[in-house]
Amino acid sequence: MTQTDPCAGVQAAILALEARFGSRLSRAEAVRAQHGSVESWLPEALPDAVLFLQTTEEVSEAVTLCHHHGAPVIPFGAGSSIEGQVLAPHGGISFDLSGMDRVLAVNAEDMDCVVQCGVIHQNLNEHLRATGLFFPVDLGAHATLGGMASTRASGTTTVRYGSMRELVLGLTVVMPDGRVIRTGGRARKSASGYDLTHLFVGAEGTLGIITEVTLRLFGRPEASRSLLCAFEDLEAATSCVVAALQSSLGLTRIELADTLQMQAINAHAGSTLPERPTLWVEITGSAPAVAHDATLFAELSEGSGALHVETADNHEAANRIWRLRHNALYATRALRPGIKGISTDVCVPISRLPDCIAEIRAEIDKTALIAPLIGHAGDGNFHLVLMFDPEDAQETAVARQINARLISIALTMGGTATGEHGVGLGKMGYMQAEHGAALDVMRQIKRALDPSGIMNPGKIFTP
Amino acid sequence: MTQTDPCAGVQAAILALEARFGSRLSRAEAVRAQHGSVESWLPEALPDAVLFLQTTEEVSEAVTLCHHHGAPVIPFGAGSSIEGQVLAPHGGISFDLSGMDRVLAVNAEDMDCVVQCGVIHQNLNEHLRATGLFFPVDLGAHATLGGMASTRASGTTTVRYGSMRELVLGLTVVMPDGRVIRTGGRARKSASGYDLTHLFVGAEGTLGIITEVTLRLFGRPEASRSLLCAFEDLEAATSCVVAALQSSLGLTRIELADTLQMQAINAHAGSTLPERPTLWVEITGSAPAVAHDATLFAELSEGSGALHVETADNHEAANRIWRLRHNALYATRALRPGIKGISTDVCVPISRLPDCIAEIRAEIDKTALIAPLIGHAGDGNFHLVLMFDPEDAQETAVARQINARLISIALTMGGTATGEHGVGLGKMGYMQAEHGAALDVMRQIKRALDPSGIMNPGKIFTP
Repeated sequence: MTQTDPCAGVQAAILALEARFGSRLSRAEAVRAQHGSVESWLPEALPDAVLFLQTTEEVSEAVTLCHHHGAPVIPFGAGSSIEGQVLAPHGGISFDLSGMDRVLAVNAEDMDCVVQCGVIHQNLNEHLRATGLFFPVDLGAHATLGGMASTRASGTTTVRYGSMRELVLGLTVVMPDGRVIRTGGRARKSASGYDLTHLFVGAEGTLGIITEVTLRLFGRPEASRSLLCAFEDLEAATSCVVAALQSSLGLTRIELADTLQMQAINAHAGSTLPERPTLWVEITGSAPAVAHDATLFAELSEGSGALHVETADNHEAANRIWRLRHNALYATRALRPGIKGISTDVCVPISRLPDCIAEIRAEIDKTALIAPLIGHAGDGNFHLVLMFDPEDAQETAVARQINARLISIALTMGGTATGEHGVGLGKMGYMQAEHGAALDVMRQIKRALDPSGIMNPGKIFTP
Repeated sequence: MTQTDPCAGVQAAILALEARFGSRLSRAEAVRAQHGSVESWLPEALPDAVLFLQTTEEVSEAVTLCHHHGAPVIPFGAGSSIEGQVLAPHGGISFDLSGMDRVLAVNAEDMDCVVQCGVIHQNLNEHLRATGLFFPVDLGAHATLGGMASTRASGTTTVRYGSMRELVLGLTVVMPDGRVIRTGGRARKSASGYDLTHLFVGAEGTLGIITEVTLRLFGRPEASRSLLCAFEDLEAATSCVVAALQSSLGLTRIELADTLQMQAINAHAGSTLPERPTLWVEITGSAPAVAHDATLFAELSEGSGALHVETADNHEAANRIWRLRHNALYATRALRPGIKGISTDVCVPISRLPDCIAEIRAEIDKTALIAPLIGHAGDGNFHLVLMFDPEDAQETAVARQINARLISIALTMGGTATGEHGVGLGKMGYMQAEHGAALDVMRQIKRALDPSGIMNPGKIFTP
């Protein structure tokens, strides 16, 4: 870092990058705007330029130049993160890695693969179709695997297969000074040295840029069955989830909606489901295991006082059930047309789900805020979609208060501010309360690995 | 760190610790020797004193004093690590944490627990008996959960449940300056900040002392069935393992022995098993799932050309099969009475197991070394027990060469020098070859978090 004026540093970096990468560096307003805004309550924050890169070597070269000039570097994949991870509050260069979209290796016998960071997860599964294998992390969003690793993403199948935390075996990372390192590897386990893989997974690009990812794959299950169960209240639904988890059923998905969400779904889909807390369940495995586990789950749900249990015995019936779940966000948006909503993301120990939800619902009920709940019950992670008008200062303030209050409740219960969306800019304010003295250890690591502070500055915590 | 002469620092620390902890600090030769030697080819390296501690607060106080005086601190649990993790090559104070043996909380509904670091894993499972839950990491060794976390231990059930890497949810850690931090938590997943939990898991006490561990628990499976299958050669055995993993069978254990190991087992147990590469398999789950999967495994093994398949239909038969596996080390030692043997520990992608084993077997066959193989086939991790006389310089040199050659072969195949034993002093020499530039990143982290270098110095890598 040779520049002391950050703006001069950025301009010098842009000139150097332009000399090396030509038209792959863009300063166009539209390109910058596309890379500097997110669907969230965070204001746009544009990078000074956007650089489109194709290989680890190019990323290394470009980081080396930015490091030399002290210019901020913001990694960008699909731009689908929702806590402002891709914004450029300190300016700098957005590194668009969406062109790094090659699957580099599929090792079917070892059930792993190596991908460039820009591969979209749905595309990886297309690529794997003929192998009988698949990669299970299943997000609604159109997201890159590098971005999913960087934000420690999860989704509906985490209860069975784990999140990016469990499924990334190794990484190629460009460090803040341009060095390229490889972490982890293809061995299924290792006790060799510090676990750098997990340090970069979830670091949101603040310690380096993930350019390649080695992932675990799984065999496609032979059979599956889906159920939909409605309960009198959240306690009953949660006790059913706990019983199912303790029985080690082959649960692949176990999703929860609250009464308000079910009302929204019925209104949107024209369905007549009970407007009560509801679980969607998918059970997979061998045919006899699925038959046994689905029967047992139905029994457990009835033991927990289920009011209504619907078992989908064929593919079409399962699709119909799950379509209601997948369209939940659209159903919510239909409650207040023109409003997109912003999602909360706490995760608590499962036994605390009913209390956590009841406490925040009581707070919401004191306001005019509409906020249906949808969540990954098997992980204790749920989303309230806060339907407020971001142009309305008063509504926005109420929504922010509810979000803050929810995080406070979750932390008191041993939970976390974010189960799967990450910190970015949006959750920074809660990190001290969640991590306490450990936050300083994170800062020590940041300073050690990125002493110039160029990697995605201003995210996760203040320096 | 106020002392510049390390010996003076240690002596000053000992006086200060004695003033605070009285007779819980021992300088007795026998106590020091017990804490400064391991069953390995590593020479003993005694600490200057041993301190017996009971609580996180005491550990924090004692580390603060050692930090002040610049005295090395070596965490000690059960002393069962086998790469010299507990040796004191730079002297200093061994912190004996075996008295921190309380289970602090069991949250049955959330299927987690919190233990002090000195709890022995078998004792935790005794404690959990009435809950229907268990902690699955299953080592032969009498090991503490803190030590197992610190060395990223695994064992026979990793293929199903994962290793300590996957099963530690959170930690309490005393940092090298005495600060106490909490990492992770009881939420099943989190995208909140750097993953410090995984940084300390496997750091072997070089970044801080783990004093409390939050662990995932699992429901005890309803049913289990065990099989023993002998194959013509290692390729056939491995192809059966790959087919079983791709079919997502409910494999809880899948262990491999080679021909020499089977000869040793027959000679020791008086059994008449085929003296061919053999798999032990345990399948668990619901009764119908187990019946289905056991039948399918038997079919897969026959498809892979199994010469002999034995299914244990009851508890006694399963115990008989598994007793042969558990006594494998004694059978090996009986090949050369008086010699304990030293275990290699590479882990490779599973498809490379036959090549890796064939390559090293060809090298071993050029020597007089006896080295039966036993391994965790589902993970690609295996142990050769090198039966040499550590008093014989020539034999020792040959054994060392074989170990080094094996690691070199494994690294070429995308594997790791250590699947589960850790680095300690024994594997330090291989870290540069395995990690390359990433080793410098580990060093940067070490320097940032332990600038005085007092935490378990001289382990994993040179500063």
